[in-house]
Amino acid sequence: MNLTDSSRTDAIQRMIHPRAIAVIGASADLSKVNGRPLKHLLDKGYTGRILPVNPKYREIAGLACYPDIASLPDGVDVAVVAVPASEVIASVEALGARGVPAAVVFSSGFGEMGAAGRALEQRLAAAAQRAGVLLCGPNCLGFINAFENVYATFSQYADGETGAGPIAFVTQSGAFGTAIAALVRQRGLGLGYFINTGNEAGLAFTELMLAVIEDPRIRVAAGYLEGLADGDGLVRLARRCRELGKPLVLTKVGRMAAGARAAASHTGALAVQDAVFDAVIRQYGVLRARNEEQMLDMLEALAQPRACAGFGLGIATQSGGAGVMMADRAEEVGLTVPALEAATQRRLAEFMPAFGAAGNPVDVTGQFVARPELLRESVIALLDDPQVHVAIVWLQLMTAHVDTLVAIFAEIQARTDKPFFVCWVAAPPAAPQRLRELGIAVYGAGERAVEAAAALARYHAGRPAAAQPTAAAAPCPPGLDPRRDGMVPSVQATAWLQAAGIPMAPVALARDGDAAVAAWRGCGRAVALKIESPDIAHKTEVGGVLLKLDDAAAVRAGVATLLANAARHAPGARIAGVLVQPMAEGHLELVVGVQRDPVFGAMVMVGSGGVLVEVLKDVAFRRAPFDVDTGLAMLDELRMGALLDGVRGQPAVDRRAVARLLSDLSRWAAATPRLAELDLNPVRVGPAGPVAVDCVMVLRDPQA
Amino acid sequence: MNLTDSSRTDAIQRMIHPRAIAVIGASADLSKVNGRPLKHLLDKGYTGRILPVNPKYREIAGLACYPDIASLPDGVDVAVVAVPASEVIASVEALGARGVPAAVVFSSGFGEMGAAGRALEQRLAAAAQRAGVLLCGPNCLGFINAFENVYATFSQYADGETGAGPIAFVTQSGAFGTAIAALVRQRGLGLGYFINTGNEAGLAFTELMLAVIEDPRIRVAAGYLEGLADGDGLVRLARRCRELGKPLVLTKVGRMAAGARAAASHTGALAVQDAVFDAVIRQYGVLRARNEEQMLDMLEALAQPRACAGFGLGIATQSGGAGVMMADRAEEVGLTVPALEAATQRRLAEFMPAFGAAGNPVDVTGQFVARPELLRESVIALLDDPQVHVAIVWLQLMTAHVDTLVAIFAEIQARTDKPFFVCWVAAPPAAPQRLRELGIAVYGAGERAVEAAAALARYHAGRPAAAQPTAAAAPCPPGLDPRRDGMVPSVQATAWLQAAGIPMAPVALARDGDAAVAAWRGCGRAVALKIESPDIAHKTEVGGVLLKLDDAAAVRAGVATLLANAARHAPGARIAGVLVQPMAEGHLELVVGVQRDPVFGAMVMVGSGGVLVEVLKDVAFRRAPFDVDTGLAMLDELRMGALLDGVRGQPAVDRRAVARLLSDLSRWAAATPRLAELDLNPVRVGPAGPVAVDCVMVLRDPQA
Repeated sequence: MNLTDSSRTDAIQRMIHPRAIAVIGASADLSKVNGRPLKHLLDKGYTGRILPVNPKYREIAGLACYPDIASLPDGVDVAVVAVPASEVIASVEALGARGVPAAVVFSSGFGEMGAAGRALEQRLAAAAQRAGVLLCGPNCLGFINAFENVYATFSQYADGETGAGPIAFVTQSGAFGTAIAALVRQRGLGLGYFINTGNEAGLAFTELMLAVIEDPRIRVAAGYLEGLADGDGLVRLARRCRELGKPLVLTKVGRMAAGARAAASHTGALAVQDAVFDAVIRQYGVLRARNEEQMLDMLEALAQPRACAGFGLGIATQSGGAGVMMADRAEEVGLTVPALEAATQRRLAEFMPAFGAAGNPVDVTGQFVARPELLRESVIALLDDPQVHVAIVWLQLMTAHVDTLVAIFAEIQARTDKPFFVCWVAAPPAAPQRLRELGIAVYGAGERAVEAAAALARYHAGRPAAAQPTAAAAPCPPGLDPRRDGMVPSVQATAWLQAAGIPMAPVALARDGDAAVAAWRGCGRAVALKIESPDIAHKTEVGGVLLKLDDAAAVRAGVATLLANAARHAPGARIAGVLVQPMAEGHLELVVGVQRDPVFGAMVMVGSGGVLVEVLKDVAFRRAPFDVDTGLAMLDELRMGALLDGVRGQPAVDRRAVARLLSDLSRWAAATPRLAELDLNPVRVGPAGPVAVDCVMVLRDPQA
Repeated sequence: MNLTDSSRTDAIQRMIHPRAIAVIGASADLSKVNGRPLKHLLDKGYTGRILPVNPKYREIAGLACYPDIASLPDGVDVAVVAVPASEVIASVEALGARGVPAAVVFSSGFGEMGAAGRALEQRLAAAAQRAGVLLCGPNCLGFINAFENVYATFSQYADGETGAGPIAFVTQSGAFGTAIAALVRQRGLGLGYFINTGNEAGLAFTELMLAVIEDPRIRVAAGYLEGLADGDGLVRLARRCRELGKPLVLTKVGRMAAGARAAASHTGALAVQDAVFDAVIRQYGVLRARNEEQMLDMLEALAQPRACAGFGLGIATQSGGAGVMMADRAEEVGLTVPALEAATQRRLAEFMPAFGAAGNPVDVTGQFVARPELLRESVIALLDDPQVHVAIVWLQLMTAHVDTLVAIFAEIQARTDKPFFVCWVAAPPAAPQRLRELGIAVYGAGERAVEAAAALARYHAGRPAAAQPTAAAAPCPPGLDPRRDGMVPSVQATAWLQAAGIPMAPVALARDGDAAVAAWRGCGRAVALKIESPDIAHKTEVGGVLLKLDDAAAVRAGVATLLANAARHAPGARIAGVLVQPMAEGHLELVVGVQRDPVFGAMVMVGSGGVLVEVLKDVAFRRAPFDVDTGLAMLDELRMGALLDGVRGQPAVDRRAVARLLSDLSRWAAATPRLAELDLNPVRVGPAGPVAVDCVMVLRDPQA
């Protein structure tokens, strides 16, 4: 049978909340990969049925052992498969025949083993689909549902204490994922789910994460990724997390290695895969952690129960220097360290020591050891300031004062509903755990606490998942067959984009000098001439562009020059004629483009024009479609974005008009699946708004 | 008496290696600030004499207590002063009278207490100087010489175990410094010296650090800074550390807050103090740690005994993903992850599991638990590769296998002399300490291990302290009084710089249209005209520049225009005339400048020209004087440096010629202490080399 969406969902839910688990190939040696799930299930107190399968045994660890899959009783919800690779397909087929809806395949020897392994994995995937068995893995460590003591895993992580908690963690890597899970345990944050997806022959990252985030006991989702095929799934996951109000934190490796796309045009060559991934997850409100430490730091902030209503950071320290360091970092990561209101300053002055500075950061010095109320009242005054949305209290050592300090922080926590973190450097071991029990996030380094506060603020500042513009088709211009692959003639591409609302410089095709002169007269001003050929994407490279021609002789000579250049530099090219275009105004150049990403579909790019795009790679991406505010955010991301506001006496330009161009383009691109590539380079921008003066549009069958 | 340099050095050495320590204002309550040094000295086994001074006691903790300073015996090398602020000056005077050469002043209530405190501190400094007593502090935690159990401190750090070790740590912050010292202890790295300099009324950071790095037991120097007055001292310290082959790691807070200089010209406005500090310490081979965690990570790498002969990083992991993450980070921090030589690959293939990738990173998978030789031989093969200069081995958990793994790493350490680090995520507590005892640096996170390896490689790649060019004066041009403050007329500034070897576009001053026309004829090509006035620094802002004039009428009219513009936009300005300058060639623009930094003296700056310098702040700084290689390194730092190599069909320019300009300028600037500011903006650069086409030079008395 093929699984429908809802039966798939049901099967996943049965798998992660099983009332009966079979272990295929179970070993009586509980230290082995195929014995460890039994050990964990028994040790951790799983209350469902545990059903080992192995013809060699009658019983393992007091559990009745079944000789084969066919002998299993009814009602098995998931089977762990720990048999040699060569026997996996038969096992999965038998599980299907026995009505077991899901298999967690530990066995390695598949896609990770070269071409032969990949072929075997494809056969396994097909067999599982035919058999109606959902696959987790192969080559995975399995999963843990800590709420119900389900340990369908041989991960080292399960060897230690594993209390359940509000974090769901899904990982494509077994070893790295186990390390991250162990770090979650070290911090005492509490892992509700741990799932290693392995080779993802069946269930992929996003589907499993979508399943576990629905659990009301889960408050935060965390994922470790190495690759991603299902961009739509990731977007769906991100939106669902937003709807549920549960933050999603992702770490993805391969930030630098991802190369340029093979068939990219010269702007598209910048569209490295990681930049696209990064842009998309930001667009949909996902937090990205650059490594496992930052992931843990973010999880700690997001797992504490309080929301953050803005970007104002209050800092109280025992060290002026630590305060400066944290304020520096706050500025770098987008937080403000606001000046305190006069009323707050008066409150602070009441109990601050004479030499303490009463600003923000507040330096409470070490005196609070003698006068605990100093710390307590300072921090509460800081948090009561309307400009402060989250606070960090920095201290160090204080080995002899843990009880006093924990009591102070408990009282602070009770007297405010804003989040505050404690950064306790070289803390006595008991302190962090006791603070975490109070719902207070604890860090060991000031900059890390600031970064985590910024993540919390960014998450709560994110827009709800709802508002998304729809794709918007534009009528295809006459004379163009939109089903034909290849470069679209400029006149028609221009017309099509104009119909989609994109401001395009008008363009006319002239077959000869006379026609070009007539077109120039029609423009009533200086014109540019450009060679037009379906075989020439980059006109300047063949000497195919002439600018600022403004008399009949020059236009006529220009046409001759362009034709001669094309004949010399692109001898085989089919020449359609010469484009005549009035010179556009605007003192700034941008590059705007659309690329069809294999994972995420149509991606719109904007970048600084001229040499900047090449040397600085100063570009911003978003997945289509998106709204005008998203377009504005793209412009904010450009390092050269300040040019839009006018420098060196140049006038500012209308950012919103540029953002509208980007949004309109994104809606049209999303409705035009055959659009493979589009370069608007340059888009000239002046006080009158943007206008695209060159356009290369390529169509391609998205299925091809 | 005033201390001479050598008697100062002697006094510092007596202070940090005292045979007798007095504690002025000693308390019988050993938990108080003024009792704690006695407790620590007794507890830690200080073998010199301990001499408490307090009229209230005859004896404290079994030590004879002196009623006053005058009663102290001969031979006291240092006194800890822990009396109220109002009594400190009298104590210091009495110490001088009694022949005690140094005082460590714990007392607060000085410079940190506003204007009155600052005045008191100045009086204290003056009194100490008169009395011939070196001051450490006031408002400091004191110091520790752990080798000789000298605990002249009340720092919390001294409450715990404090084994001596190869790191000397000097800190301006007490609280933050204590935290860092505690982190050093947590890692078991070993702190030989801990010194908190406090308000630095006498001994400053650099002088104390210079004293302790001479100790042969010290291998690494670490400093925490909040501010710095003595730039020359820091440079001297950096050079001495290089001579001794001892790395110096500095953390300085205030990266963002430092504002623009008050009297900066428009390029100088970029010369924020932290950028200058950062450039100078890099120039002299100091490593900068951005925060306390990075400092510890670097110290761990630098304290292990092995040098790193290059930037090639070998990575062996138990997780492919961790390998990718580390390779990403390596690329970002300037390490390479080289492909392995064929011989290495063959060696790896012998013992690698069939599915392990044999590249770099080497994925040894988890199989080494069963086959320890897999890990051992893989890592040794990796380290034996000539392209690999340092290696990192990544693993996680392995709680049950600590003995096996420590034995493997010990054998690897014995069989190679290249440095290798272990990154052990969520390590069992015993493991890191055991590896550190083997001389192996250990990290808990992959990216941090990579950053530390990069620091080690950077340190060993640094040039020796020796080679430094000398300052080189150039003859002052006729008609200029170099002692006069203010803006130097362009013709003379140009001549002066030409004499210093700087390629300057020729310039002539014309008083009227006729003279300008004559000068244009003399040029034999198109010219630029520029208004010349000692009151106008930024000529374009008053409409004072016209370009590309190439006929007599245009030149004559141009002079009239400039004079009219100046009269309108700068009505009070004294007009010297109009400069006539042939149009310079060169397709690129740089900005070159000199600023006199109050801490570091003449700083040379180069930046991308045009709008880039304003929007991107794309500039590099170095302290003058420096050599041509340093100039090349400055160009390498520019983000837009790629423009120098030619983009979009532009020719490459001669980087060395630009670097020579920078070096020559630096040598001249270093020899010209009255040079307050110099802007060469723009310097045009073409295939023929650089030429400065505009010059604003300001002289000022450096003592004023």
